[in-house]
Amino acid sequence: MNSFGQIFRLTSFGESHGPAIGGVVDGMPAGVSVNIDEIQRQLNRRRPGQSSIVTSRDEKDRVTILSGLMDGVTTGTSIGFMVENYNQHSSDYDNMRDLFRPSHADFTYTAKYGIRDHRGGGRSSARETISRVVAGAFARQALSVHGISVYAFTSRVADISFEADPLSVDPALIDTNDVRCPDPEVADRMHALISRVKSEGDTVGGIITGVISGLPAGLGQPVFDKFSASLATAMMGINAAKAFEIGMGMEGCCHRGSEMIDRFVVNPEDGRITTSTNHSGGIQGGITNGMPVIFRVGFKPVATLLRDVATIDRDGHPVTLRARGRHDPCVLPRAVPVVEAMAAMVALDALLLNRTSRI
Amino acid sequence: MNSFGQIFRLTSFGESHGPAIGGVVDGMPAGVSVNIDEIQRQLNRRRPGQSSIVTSRDEKDRVTILSGLMDGVTTGTSIGFMVENYNQHSSDYDNMRDLFRPSHADFTYTAKYGIRDHRGGGRSSARETISRVVAGAFARQALSVHGISVYAFTSRVADISFEADPLSVDPALIDTNDVRCPDPEVADRMHALISRVKSEGDTVGGIITGVISGLPAGLGQPVFDKFSASLATAMMGINAAKAFEIGMGMEGCCHRGSEMIDRFVVNPEDGRITTSTNHSGGIQGGITNGMPVIFRVGFKPVATLLRDVATIDRDGHPVTLRARGRHDPCVLPRAVPVVEAMAAMVALDALLLNRTSRI
Amino acid sequence: MNSFGQIFRLTSFGESHGPAIGGVVDGMPAGVSVNIDEIQRQLNRRRPGQSSIVTSRDEKDRVTILSGLMDGVTTGTSIGFMVENYNQHSSDYDNMRDLFRPSHADFTYTAKYGIRDHRGGGRSSARETISRVVAGAFARQALSVHGISVYAFTSRVADISFEADPLSVDPALIDTNDVRCPDPEVADRMHALISRVKSEGDTVGGIITGVISGLPAGLGQPVFDKFSASLATAMMGINAAKAFEIGMGMEGCCHRGSEMIDRFVVNPEDGRITTSTNHSGGIQGGITNGMPVIFRVGFKPVATLLRDVATIDRDGHPVTLRARGRHDPCVLPRAVPVVEAMAAMVALDALLLNRTSRI
Amino acid sequence: MNSFGQIFRLTSFGESHGPAIGGVVDGMPAGVSVNIDEIQRQLNRRRPGQSSIVTSRDEKDRVTILSGLMDGVTTGTSIGFMVENYNQHSSDYDNMRDLFRPSHADFTYTAKYGIRDHRGGGRSSARETISRVVAGAFARQALSVHGISVYAFTSRVADISFEADPLSVDPALIDTNDVRCPDPEVADRMHALISRVKSEGDTVGGIITGVISGLPAGLGQPVFDKFSASLATAMMGINAAKAFEIGMGMEGCCHRGSEMIDRFVVNPEDGRITTSTNHSGGIQGGITNGMPVIFRVGFKPVATLLRDVATIDRDGHPVTLRARGRHDPCVLPRAVPVVEAMAAMVALDALLLNRTSRI
Repeated sequence: MNSFGQIFRLTSFGESHGPAIGGVVDGMPAGVSVNIDEIQRQLNRRRPGQSSIVTSRDEKDRVTILSGLMDGVTTGTSIGFMVENYNQHSSDYDNMRDLFRPSHADFTYTAKYGIRDHRGGGRSSARETISRVVAGAFARQALSVHGISVYAFTSRVADISFEADPLSVDPALIDTNDVRCPDPEVADRMHALISRVKSEGDTVGGIITGVISGLPAGLGQPVFDKFSASLATAMMGINAAKAFEIGMGMEGCCHRGSEMIDRFVVNPEDGRITTSTNHSGGIQGGITNGMPVIFRVGFKPVATLLRDVATIDRDGHPVTLRARGRHDPCVLPRAVPVVEAMAAMVALDALLLNRTSRI
Repeated sequence: MNSFGQIFRLTSFGESHGPAIGGVVDGMPAGVSVNIDEIQRQLNRRRPGQSSIVTSRDEKDRVTILSGLMDGVTTGTSIGFMVENYNQHSSDYDNMRDLFRPSHADFTYTAKYGIRDHRGGGRSSARETISRVVAGAFARQALSVHGISVYAFTSRVADISFEADPLSVDPALIDTNDVRCPDPEVADRMHALISRVKSEGDTVGGIITGVISGLPAGLGQPVFDKFSASLATAMMGINAAKAFEIGMGMEGCCHRGSEMIDRFVVNPEDGRITTSTNHSGGIQGGITNGMPVIFRVGFKPVATLLRDVATIDRDGHPVTLRARGRHDPCVLPRAVPVVEAMAAMVALDALLLNRTSRI
Repeated sequence: MNSFGQIFRLTSFGESHGPAIGGVVDGMPAGVSVNIDEIQRQLNRRRPGQSSIVTSRDEKDRVTILSGLMDGVTTGTSIGFMVENYNQHSSDYDNMRDLFRPSHADFTYTAKYGIRDHRGGGRSSARETISRVVAGAFARQALSVHGISVYAFTSRVADISFEADPLSVDPALIDTNDVRCPDPEVADRMHALISRVKSEGDTVGGIITGVISGLPAGLGQPVFDKFSASLATAMMGINAAKAFEIGMGMEGCCHRGSEMIDRFVVNPEDGRITTSTNHSGGIQGGITNGMPVIFRVGFKPVATLLRDVATIDRDGHPVTLRARGRHDPCVLPRAVPVVEAMAAMVALDALLLNRTSRI
Repeated sequence: MNSFGQIFRLTSFGESHGPAIGGVVDGMPAGVSVNIDEIQRQLNRRRPGQSSIVTSRDEKDRVTILSGLMDGVTTGTSIGFMVENYNQHSSDYDNMRDLFRPSHADFTYTAKYGIRDHRGGGRSSARETISRVVAGAFARQALSVHGISVYAFTSRVADISFEADPLSVDPALIDTNDVRCPDPEVADRMHALISRVKSEGDTVGGIITGVISGLPAGLGQPVFDKFSASLATAMMGINAAKAFEIGMGMEGCCHRGSEMIDRFVVNPEDGRITTSTNHSGGIQGGITNGMPVIFRVGFKPVATLLRDVATIDRDGHPVTLRARGRHDPCVLPRAVPVVEAMAAMVALDALLLNRTSRI
């Protein structure tokens, strides 16, 4: 289905070349003074055409709020919103109507529905993530009332890594470059690589690291809906995501228990119980322990190559595909605000649901 | 909440030292002849005490089916089941009532609920996975009617890896050793490592690889509930899981698009459309493409060390914990059937839900 | 939450005096050729200003479809839609900002959210039912592919009743008068009563009868989500609904079993099993039996009187309310298409879900 | 599906002649001291064999709690429970294996699932309501912490009515007679009628009235999940329910607005806003207003007559059914605790969910 979340819930709609992308945010708590400019600012971070290393499709992506606010304050009712599409070049996709692009959703949508909207990928386009960014921006504003914040950044592109401790990152630096890597020197190298790959008609993937800080201990449901499991489904539901790690990740899983346990200590400053390390990534037994939640998401290289690619049409005949349209050589820079948005939605949903835990 | 799945849904209950572990399987389709022995066989694979490298808690884990069958055939009604606990040694945990074991759920449950069952970890115990194995065993029997099967195996313990193509594995070999690694030589080395780690009072983690084969193209929901996202939440909801990958995983995400696309070809034998490689892990646009689904799950080393560990009690006073109880030095051997069970539940749920896709 | 349905699901948004009313239809099966004019026609039946016995607010209620269709055919993806509001007279409600209208949602929304949109009732306005009519119109078109149809009509206004067998009604007659009662003579009397009540500044309620025909046997879930229970929640969720009956209703409940059982017979024409009477209203054990589903919904008289009414403000001070705004003296004529829409949604949802009942 | 509720949720299982009836209560808040005897007392009120006017099946219906409690206090984890069946006389139903009892679920279950458990009605048996009574008893204990209570009583059997104001009833009188009508004189007449009907091999239905008092204003979701809509689905999901009314009901719907509005007044004792009448039944705009919620549920006469009944078998051949088994001549006395239980579940669910309404 097209809904995400249990209490705070986004239901989204929209195709790449349809009239609009939008959705309904349900469960937004009443009484939040909403900064619409900040919502738009998050959309601008996701916007195509923002730099030389992203698609040149020219969309302003202006959001219109259709309900749920009264004098700028949330009323507790559902929030309808939409972003109109303007810069469709649907004819760029005429040659794709009857063929299946490799590693795209063309074949699988056809297998599922018997029909697909081939224009710009239809519903499978990453333009769908507009709705996530809008809903996430609402969630962030609700979270900030409770002192909770979210940031993410590009930590790896191909073999270029930013290796620092995620908690040492200054979030203000993330948007100081096109790649959204907080280290300017590493960002430059990533940018150069993406540019070179683009010039070769190829694409490249990498890793985004995310941090949720300020979470109280106790969020998440203990069995199937562990905080980490909800975060995993949130991230793996983003286009092109192929891997998810929390805390120690795959690497840490291959170490000893004596190396990976997080010892409890009392913070001498405030007397609160905390841990001296954070291999757990802020989650123990599926529930937040009050430490920052740290996670990583792997995004595959974009499947659309700007070179001739051999594929087949729906009758199985071999054809050569020459992609037109406008495409990203690397999704990471624009995926950063999407990762943040999904993380914010997970956190707010867990925060609200947790209010029902005790009598 | 304690439910998993949308159409085929498990709701589970039970604590490590309570009277029983069990649950309700809802949405099991009518008309399946159920082999109860096979359900018990799956439970036996998860059972404690099965080898020298797992916990010595002695439980027979006999399942009792309480409803939903008529002459051995599913009737479409909900299936209640339970496994009674017999071999609790609750007094082993008396010393843990007021302290927080590092990297366990003791602190977080207390933070969430204000109360916790400290005996054997209570609800956070991996005994909870009994319910998953039972529900998964039902799902597997429904899937087999449709030619779909699931297997998983231990592919890495610490730095010892089984590197072969997961599709080349003979599932019949998986259970031929205690570690559940299909290569006897690698399994021997893993076994030796686990034994050594155990003798040191330490623990070790690793990776399980899973395969779902026989899936038709078209399963999964295209946006938030991508097949891969559902599989991610299924796996990350298992105790000790810290990482999830599908297909190319983190490693593949750091390659070029030209290396990672899966070209469509027509299978000359049956004329069906397939792909020549499977970097996608059987999922494109979140939907199955008819190739095997291949995934990996990272499990952290068990947090209970059989040595003195410094921690604090609920008042923040430092204490030394000396674990008694019976514990696994490595969860992987017993997690294999749990991974398989969760994968089977995801597959059946998607199979059933997909019947609603077209008019 | 603002969602209705499990597989076929409407999520709605919008306030009476906000920019638009709309929603997202999720789970609409792929492959249905949609007649947009027919959707608009259903909206026109609900539209204000359509006759002398409904509110004079002048809204065209033109629907815009924002996604989910390709060349007029559903693609299986979610369908965003909206109806813009034009004829708000928000200043009519300035005097209501701080007072509570009797038997309206003013007090309860304030109690729940601490804030409310007082303009035209905000989210509690019956304009919210626009979304239901649109979603229901989609559902009807999907149902018609399977030979299932829905109709409803005004069967009672105050003490004026239309007493005929609901199955004897010619649906084509329902819209031949303003009241939507299929008997012209009874409709005239109802119309005269509503006009008289209106002229007195008063309002009046009554009963709508609904019929779903062509349903196969087997729809509905046997325990909590009985077809009749889903229909009940659908109807009781409509503004002003205060009673729901299926088949024999309250009256039949007070008879003997020997009078109320429906005997099974074989239809000599087609050899199919049917019942000779339909006291059950088409539902047995919560599941459809293939007979028409017959139900009744009671709608209270509108709470807004066009006369002075004593009430209190939010500080508890007595005030006299003199309603301005434009109001219906009787909701029944405009509620008929809403009842039909909700019934269609319930039927389609059950039809789709039922495909998962068997292996 | 076999689940009810969003936050506080019961998932149930069990057939009339299977090993046990039971379920899982999820979302029970932590920190409630549970009185197990009180749960058993509620089950005893529902128990067969409790009087001369109910079925003589002899079941003790002893509940076993399998999880979720620690030293008698809820821990926030799911609560498994079961009631074993002992007094099955399955052979009484041998003659029903291949025929369809009129107005029972035999035909519809077969239509849905292709298979049915014919013994005692299988899953369609009212023994399924055992699970509801247990879950409701937990809910009641959580509600009582918040000063909320629930009671219901038989208010009509055939043409014998108890007409008093439901709020004037002394709940302590309800269980002073077999019929569960709080007026001894009316109860005697109802009892005599049920006895006479039973002696004739016939059955009779009627109406149960319910009251939820102590609810704060603000519970319920404003659109589809109105408190009244949730209560409707709760009640219409009970076996044999055919009608539901809240507050003024069908009768009040046929009056004028000027007669049915509830004027707001300030309670001089505590200064709180209340209403001078309660035609709304405690619900306005779908949300509780702090007045008692008053509702009525119609239950049809039991379909099993203890006389020869003509019906057909699954091949359509006419047969004469002579019911054996043990049956209730009237469900109302035993349905009273079920109505209360469902009402308590709705109230607790709404209470918990409402905590998420505001930031």
